[in-house]
Amino acid sequence: MKRETLVKNIFDKKSFLCVGLDPDISKLPSHLLEKENPIFEFNKAIIDATAPYTVAYKPNVAFYECQGLQGWNALELTIQHIQKNYPEIFIIADAKRGDIGNTAKMYARTFFEHLDVDAVTVAPYMGEDSVIPFLEYSNKFTVLLALTSNKGSHDFQMIEDKNDRRLFENVIIKSSEWGSPDNLMFVVGATQGQLLSDVRMIAPENFLLVPGVGAQGGSLEEVARLAMNDDCGILVNSSRGIIYASSGLDFAEAAAREASKLASSMAELLPR
Amino acid sequence: MKRETLVKNIFDKKSFLCVGLDPDISKLPSHLLEKENPIFEFNKAIIDATAPYTVAYKPNVAFYECQGLQGWNALELTIQHIQKNYPEIFIIADAKRGDIGNTAKMYARTFFEHLDVDAVTVAPYMGEDSVIPFLEYSNKFTVLLALTSNKGSHDFQMIEDKNDRRLFENVIIKSSEWGSPDNLMFVVGATQGQLLSDVRMIAPENFLLVPGVGAQGGSLEEVARLAMNDDCGILVNSSRGIIYASSGLDFAEAAAREASKLASSMAELLPR
Repeated sequence: MKRETLVKNIFDKKSFLCVGLDPDISKLPSHLLEKENPIFEFNKAIIDATAPYTVAYKPNVAFYECQGLQGWNALELTIQHIQKNYPEIFIIADAKRGDIGNTAKMYARTFFEHLDVDAVTVAPYMGEDSVIPFLEYSNKFTVLLALTSNKGSHDFQMIEDKNDRRLFENVIIKSSEWGSPDNLMFVVGATQGQLLSDVRMIAPENFLLVPGVGAQGGSLEEVARLAMNDDCGILVNSSRGIIYASSGLDFAEAAAREASKLASSMAELLPR
Repeated sequence: MKRETLVKNIFDKKSFLCVGLDPDISKLPSHLLEKENPIFEFNKAIIDATAPYTVAYKPNVAFYECQGLQGWNALELTIQHIQKNYPEIFIIADAKRGDIGNTAKMYARTFFEHLDVDAVTVAPYMGEDSVIPFLEYSNKFTVLLALTSNKGSHDFQMIEDKNDRRLFENVIIKSSEWGSPDNLMFVVGATQGQLLSDVRMIAPENFLLVPGVGAQGGSLEEVARLAMNDDCGILVNSSRGIIYASSGLDFAEAAAREASKLASSMAELLPR
C-alpha cells in the first residue's frame, strides 16, 4: 500500500486505529476451542466486528509461531481473510526481525512476497544490511523499532553518545539515510510521554506505530498531541483492550464496542 | 544442556565446531528436489555426515520460515533427528528474537519447550524484559547478539557513550547482571579482529558463539588466539563453507570433509 492510500483511508474512516491480533490460546473464549482452528475463528470474528473502526491490523507473529504448524496456518488464513474482505486495511506483521543481509532478504521475501503484508517490524541492532532488504520493496513499509513501549526500553535505547544523541535518535537519524517516509516507519511507545515529541522533531514525516495505549498505560490524547502531523502520521495500536474485552459468547461484539469507542476519540483528535 | 556437559563434549570430541543449518532451497542438490521434504532430507544427510566432527548445530530459523508450513515442519524434523540420534550435540535455534515481556515468554516457550532446543539467539535492543523470560529456563542458554559479523554491525553496536563504552560493551555488561555464564552466551563475529579480545575482557567466562569464519572472511586461528579461555569458551560456526561444499550427489561427503578439516585445526588450537 502507498503512503497516500493509508493517509486517505485514515481520513475517510476518521480513525488511526491499529488492532493487534495477538491471540493467546489460554485466553480465547472457551466455546471456540472445539473448532478445528480456534485461533483463526477467533481472529475472523474479531476482524469482521472491528473492521469498520480500523485502518490497520497487526498480528504479532510470536503468538502464531508458538502454536507450531497450526499457528502458522492460522496466521496465513488471517492475513488472507483481511486481504480478501478488507483490501483497504493495512496489515503489519509484527515480527521484529533483524539478521545479516542474506537472511534479512529471506525474511523480507517471507513477509512481503509469501504473506504479502504491507509492513513488517524490524529490529535495528545489526545495522544497515539487516534493514535494506526490507526497504527494497515498493509500496511496502519497514517499521523499525526506535523507542519501544516496554519497561526494558530504557536499558539501551536511552544511552547517550558523546554528542548527546540517544540510541533511539541515532537509529532514526541513521535509518533515515536508508529509507524515506514512503517506506520507513518507526515504533514509538505511547508510554514514552515527552519523548514522543523528540521523535517527531527528528522524523517529522514518517508514520509512527504507537503501541502501549490501554493495557500498558499510555494516553491516546497525549500521543495525538505530541506526535500527530498534518497527515495524521500515527497508527495507534491496541491489542488486549480490544480483543479480550469479553471472554464470553459476546467477545466479538465487545471488541467492536471497544474499537468503536477508540475510533470515536480518534475522530475528535484528527486534524481537520 | 549444562555448561559443563558442553565443555566436556568439546574436549572429548576435540572440536568446537558449530555447523549452521541454513538450507537455501535454490542451492540444494537438484536430486533432492524430487523428495517429499527436500530441506529435511538435505539436513539429515548433512547431519549424519558431519556429526562426528561437530559439537553444535545452529539452524537459522529464517531459512525454514520462508518455506511456510513445510519449512516449519522441516525445522521440527531436523531438531528431532539430532535429539534422537546425537543427544550429546548442542542445538542453537538462530532466531534473533526480541520482544516485550509477554511476547518474549511465548518465544521462550516455543523454542525451549515446544522445540526443546538448548539455546536461542536473542536481540538485545528492547532490554531486560525482552531477555529475562529466556534466562528463566534451567540448562538452556540465551545467546545475546553483542558484536555481530556483518557489515552493518558498526552502525549502532560501536556507538560510544559518554564513558567510552561502546554499545556492544553496554549490552554485555548490563546483561551480565541478568544472567551468568551458565545461561548466557554472546554472539561475536569472527570478522571483528581485535575487538574479540575486548569482549573476552568483559566476559571472561561466557561462551561466545562466533560466526563469520569461512565465507565471511574471519580466521579460525585469530578467533582462538583472541577469544579462547580455559574451558574453550567458543563455538565457531560455519554454514555455507560446509553445507554447500558440493552441490552434487557427493554433497554430504564433501560437507564431512570440510567439517573434518575444521575440526582437525580446532583440535590443534584447544588448550591442553
